[in-house]
Amino acid sequence: MDILIKNISTLIQDAYHILNNKDILIEGNKIKKVGTILPEDLPAYCKIIEANGKVVMPGLINAHTHLYQSMLRGCRDDLTLIPWCEKVTFPFVDMVYKDCREKGNTMIGYYWSMLSSIEMIHNGITCCIDMDLSLDSIFKAWQDIGMRGIAAITVANRWIPKEFCSDDDSIKTGIEKYIKEWHQGSSDNGLIQVFIAPSTLFCCTPELMEWLVEKTEEYDLGFQIHISETKWENNDALKEFKTTPLEYLEKMNLLRRPISAAHCIYLTDKEIDIAAERGVVPVYNPKSNMKLGNGVAPLVKMLEKGIAVALGTDGPASNDRLDIFEEMRVGVLLQKVFHKDPGVINAQEIFKMATENGAKAARIDAGTIEGGKLADLIILDLNKAHSAPVNDVIQNIVYCAKDSNVETTIINGRIIMEDGKILTIDEESLTKEGIKKGEEILKEINFDKA
Amino acid sequence: MDILIKNISTLIQDAYHILNNKDILIEGNKIKKVGTILPEDLPAYCKIIEANGKVVMPGLINAHTHLYQSMLRGCRDDLTLIPWCEKVTFPFVDMVYKDCREKGNTMIGYYWSMLSSIEMIHNGITCCIDMDLSLDSIFKAWQDIGMRGIAAITVANRWIPKEFCSDDDSIKTGIEKYIKEWHQGSSDNGLIQVFIAPSTLFCCTPELMEWLVEKTEEYDLGFQIHISETKWENNDALKEFKTTPLEYLEKMNLLRRPISAAHCIYLTDKEIDIAAERGVVPVYNPKSNMKLGNGVAPLVKMLEKGIAVALGTDGPASNDRLDIFEEMRVGVLLQKVFHKDPGVINAQEIFKMATENGAKAARIDAGTIEGGKLADLIILDLNKAHSAPVNDVIQNIVYCAKDSNVETTIINGRIIMEDGKILTIDEESLTKEGIKKGEEILKEINFDKA
Repeated sequence: MDILIKNISTLIQDAYHILNNKDILIEGNKIKKVGTILPEDLPAYCKIIEANGKVVMPGLINAHTHLYQSMLRGCRDDLTLIPWCEKVTFPFVDMVYKDCREKGNTMIGYYWSMLSSIEMIHNGITCCIDMDLSLDSIFKAWQDIGMRGIAAITVANRWIPKEFCSDDDSIKTGIEKYIKEWHQGSSDNGLIQVFIAPSTLFCCTPELMEWLVEKTEEYDLGFQIHISETKWENNDALKEFKTTPLEYLEKMNLLRRPISAAHCIYLTDKEIDIAAERGVVPVYNPKSNMKLGNGVAPLVKMLEKGIAVALGTDGPASNDRLDIFEEMRVGVLLQKVFHKDPGVINAQEIFKMATENGAKAARIDAGTIEGGKLADLIILDLNKAHSAPVNDVIQNIVYCAKDSNVETTIINGRIIMEDGKILTIDEESLTKEGIKKGEEILKEINFDKA
Repeated sequence: MDILIKNISTLIQDAYHILNNKDILIEGNKIKKVGTILPEDLPAYCKIIEANGKVVMPGLINAHTHLYQSMLRGCRDDLTLIPWCEKVTFPFVDMVYKDCREKGNTMIGYYWSMLSSIEMIHNGITCCIDMDLSLDSIFKAWQDIGMRGIAAITVANRWIPKEFCSDDDSIKTGIEKYIKEWHQGSSDNGLIQVFIAPSTLFCCTPELMEWLVEKTEEYDLGFQIHISETKWENNDALKEFKTTPLEYLEKMNLLRRPISAAHCIYLTDKEIDIAAERGVVPVYNPKSNMKLGNGVAPLVKMLEKGIAVALGTDGPASNDRLDIFEEMRVGVLLQKVFHKDPGVINAQEIFKMATENGAKAARIDAGTIEGGKLADLIILDLNKAHSAPVNDVIQNIVYCAKDSNVETTIINGRIIMEDGKILTIDEESLTKEGIKKGEEILKEINFDKA
């Protein structure tokens, strides 16, 4: 059904363009027109949403996450990346693999994906890039709730513990299957996309890496990879490849298509230039980088070079939230204190990262509100004790907004949430069931507490 | 009315002591008993709250804030402390003073205090220390909603712009009035307290400073002051007093009673030793320190020395929230990344700061759940998509919890909020009215936008 959002008090087209008292007409999965919509412009059947006193803005985009970790919140806040993988995420993934292989039980993916999507939709997130475990049940959950999900199918044939590596044949078969069945094949008007994601540059042999990039060319797919998340990653790359990570990808001609690179904390100045030239979209994950003690990304430098940095929560085990409002404010505050200069970055810049630049990372024609763009948007009520008076709408959103401000979420032209209630699923019973399934699987795992 | 909270699945007595399947009996404004309450132990009239599946924990304490700034959210995120005061807070305070003096209109304080208290109660905050503007209408709002409020009456007779300074006589008269009418005189069972607060050590002459400390001795009052919030404050103190700020207070014998000191970012090692010895309660305000680019407090060092550091949001114009859940996680994450070591501080330590140590700052017998303590506590439902499964209850709270987890808030033995609804006031209409009054006064101010 087409949708008219009318009498919008504050319409944020993007971080730098704000209109008052305008309307938005949505036809199918796209924005048809922004401005004043006359009665004669309306299609025959049209849902009308009154937005007087409200703020309409582009949906937030979570450009890097690992949704399975919604089962692993509140686990170990004292470990650096590798021990944390070994003691928190690997045991869980191992158990999920075992469950899938031995019992054919793949439904756990449905539950973590559903719990995460419920959380994200309440937080105004309309699209996420989920790197890691891929299961049909994950895509099924996105489809059921109506989340725009991008499965960055994660690939490894070396370096990590061998139980998580696959042989090249099964990697290739798996990728082709997901591309055909979900990227091209599903009947949801492009809601679900597939990306290819070597976990890190150490995880794939050069031959496999080249094959992966070829596939992204063949099917016009996105590509996401973890780059320079830690200092030792750079040191190891220097040892193994005689160069730092992003420069290595450049030397291998793997940046011939623009990629999205999560973290980028230890990029050299030369690598920042490469990123600018090659259209790399780095994803800044401030809270995760803080929790694991990894460091502070050179965001200010990257933005100065005109790089379209996006924003992500990373997995909820290292955050532990899927909340881009909080990520925006923490991300901007971290840069201010790191540089000891509040002027180095402002609310508008991080707002752009969470919307427009997120759309670049996700390779979708969204992130701003204009005719022709995908209809992924949210309606906020800022007239709450915690978020008003509104002195500057972008600053009030970045520094104050939270789920209780988000009234309506529209994804791909479909109303997913209205008056703070998700319409597409039975939220209460699925939440209960998802938590129960999570608790059951967690009980079976013998986490190393040392 | 007395209250029985029964069948509590998870009872957090403090960060290090957690009980399962216990009850709490509240009589008057205190916790009477924690454990198994038998029917014969119950008083005749007793409200019963079922807490099966729920978490009960001490109320959060916001140990340093300036509530009037709830009117100033979303103003200027590009300025360091002094220009920010000049362009954001002073013009507002000036207008409020003018309104009070010229029009006798002091009600604005009721509204900012009410909006802030509504926000804090939803966020599980049961007590705040509000330093700055004091008006009877602020106390009245706390009384109406049932918030435990500590008015740290702010004093200045030099250094800041002269329109904000008062002469010694009116300072002294004002303080005596507030002590008599509110600290000792109100009929609310100790809900409201008065502290004395020289804004900084530059703001009061030594004579006045000595008089203030004498008053805290005479009436057994708390004392709060901003200490070492910026690098230049230390430099200026070295110039004017030939010593750093806290050491100056020690030399003047002003630390003869324990004080609470907001920020403490640039304490020297020697000052940390003084703080430990003198029982100073520093208040860590991580988000504000980040937003103003002030720096990172030496929290790890202070905790190592056994100092009871408390946690505060600071004013919402430099945060812009009154949310101790978010402050806990950001505060702990900031230390982890600053030290590049996730092991330097954990969730339990920051939880203790936000509860037990907060009670020390507020000088109240609360912050833990034990017989005899004040009945300031909250009931959480963590079974939500964003906060479950619960792997470790303290970590899940610190890294995931938010207002929608807080079901019930009890302050001074009175149920202030139940099922997420505030019972003591008409929340909706007061929110609406408060925002409207704020917008009206803001329109009158000619902020310097440059």
